[in-house]
Amino acid sequence: MKRLILVRHGQSQWNELNLFTGWTDVDLTQRGIKEAYDAGLTLKNAGYKPEVCFTSYLKRAVKTLNQVLDAMDMDYLPVEKSWRLNEKHYGILQGKNKKEMVEKYGDQQIHQWRRGYACPPPVLEEEAAKLQRNDNRYAELSDSEMPYTESLKDCIDRLMPFYQKSIKKAFDVHNEVIVVAHGNSLRGIVKTIKGISDDDIADLNLPTAIPYIFELDDSLHFLNDFFLADKEALDKATAEVANQSKK
Amino acid sequence: MKRLILVRHGQSQWNELNLFTGWTDVDLTQRGIKEAYDAGLTLKNAGYKPEVCFTSYLKRAVKTLNQVLDAMDMDYLPVEKSWRLNEKHYGILQGKNKKEMVEKYGDQQIHQWRRGYACPPPVLEEEAAKLQRNDNRYAELSDSEMPYTESLKDCIDRLMPFYQKSIKKAFDVHNEVIVVAHGNSLRGIVKTIKGISDDDIADLNLPTAIPYIFELDDSLHFLNDFFLADKEALDKATAEVANQSKK
Repeated sequence: MKRLILVRHGQSQWNELNLFTGWTDVDLTQRGIKEAYDAGLTLKNAGYKPEVCFTSYLKRAVKTLNQVLDAMDMDYLPVEKSWRLNEKHYGILQGKNKKEMVEKYGDQQIHQWRRGYACPPPVLEEEAAKLQRNDNRYAELSDSEMPYTESLKDCIDRLMPFYQKSIKKAFDVHNEVIVVAHGNSLRGIVKTIKGISDDDIADLNLPTAIPYIFELDDSLHFLNDFFLADKEALDKATAEVANQSKK
Repeated sequence: MKRLILVRHGQSQWNELNLFTGWTDVDLTQRGIKEAYDAGLTLKNAGYKPEVCFTSYLKRAVKTLNQVLDAMDMDYLPVEKSWRLNEKHYGILQGKNKKEMVEKYGDQQIHQWRRGYACPPPVLEEEAAKLQRNDNRYAELSDSEMPYTESLKDCIDRLMPFYQKSIKKAFDVHNEVIVVAHGNSLRGIVKTIKGISDDDIADLNLPTAIPYIFELDDSLHFLNDFFLADKEALDKATAEVANQSKK
């Protein structure tokens, strides 16, 4: 049996401030660091032994992975980072307060931009777009690959080549793979493995820093999935994420 | 011009306890973590922009690199880890108190094992050797590659294929490369670049967590080297390392 472990990053500073993040490279809070370390301990205590790791170019994911590996005493594991695992790009909403945006654009519009499958927010302002184009980490992206806003569909579309060529490919030689990423890029992976429809995928709320285990057969067909947490911790984390999207 | 940045890991728990470490996977102390972060700030403030990173399989080096990258806001950089960058294997001395070993084997013998170019300590005890052979991280090593003790020469010999094929190779596409590793594996790199003799290399004491910059021409010939620290910090770090090898 093959196992894919998904972990959504721990609390970030902008979660706490209730700002839209997207591609903005926001750090973890102290709580987020602890959540990540605890996720690693949970995996270690349950006997998981990932052999290779994938994460995004955003520090809240990279540092969550670092904490997980450290708690597992597996700092030595190979890690591949990719912009394709980044959070969905939130366009003009990035850095803006969620409540203020609801007041400005209305509840329904914001809900569409956040949860509509093919509804990208307006693109990033020119100045911010220029900064992003000049960011060294994205120098490898062609102009046509570089997003300045994304719908969930756009996010999943740019994730897929990496999922197919790197993550799935890793199972050719490994039995356990861990991916530490973001709410929307992880939605893309879950959608693909479980065959969830475009309409239903936006309703999937992944709790932060709770290991989500997929058991797959040797041809990578879905067998089983579960969260690695006791019921109380899982209920609390799920309620918090659901609550956050209401704010 | 090409730049190679070398950083020796920050203070580890066994530095503090005065135990031989070698391949034992000892963690950083809180001081070591801060030293590493400060090294990253120094690099950032001086305008360095490494494009790719190399480190060992030992957490004191991996975590030093993580801190350096975090301080530089470059958590996204690609990192390649290799056992070939590990510290010299200290054989039977690993985990033993340095002072007690001097009392047991005599000052001169210990000095030879530590500083003689081709004098490995006795090999690891059978039980410890078995644990090392069964450690997943070293599963890729053939029996003939796996060391149970090493002289400085052995350490440099196993480092060289990685230096040639990965680190030097990285300069084909990059201008700045950072390597975070250990006293003896870094000695191997410095020896090769500067053409230091077998007799002289053991006397080179690298201060911990002070960036050591090599400027190279486009054919990777040595141009210039310097430590990135003010004189006071450098003198203090150098004195501490020299003092430690006297203890």
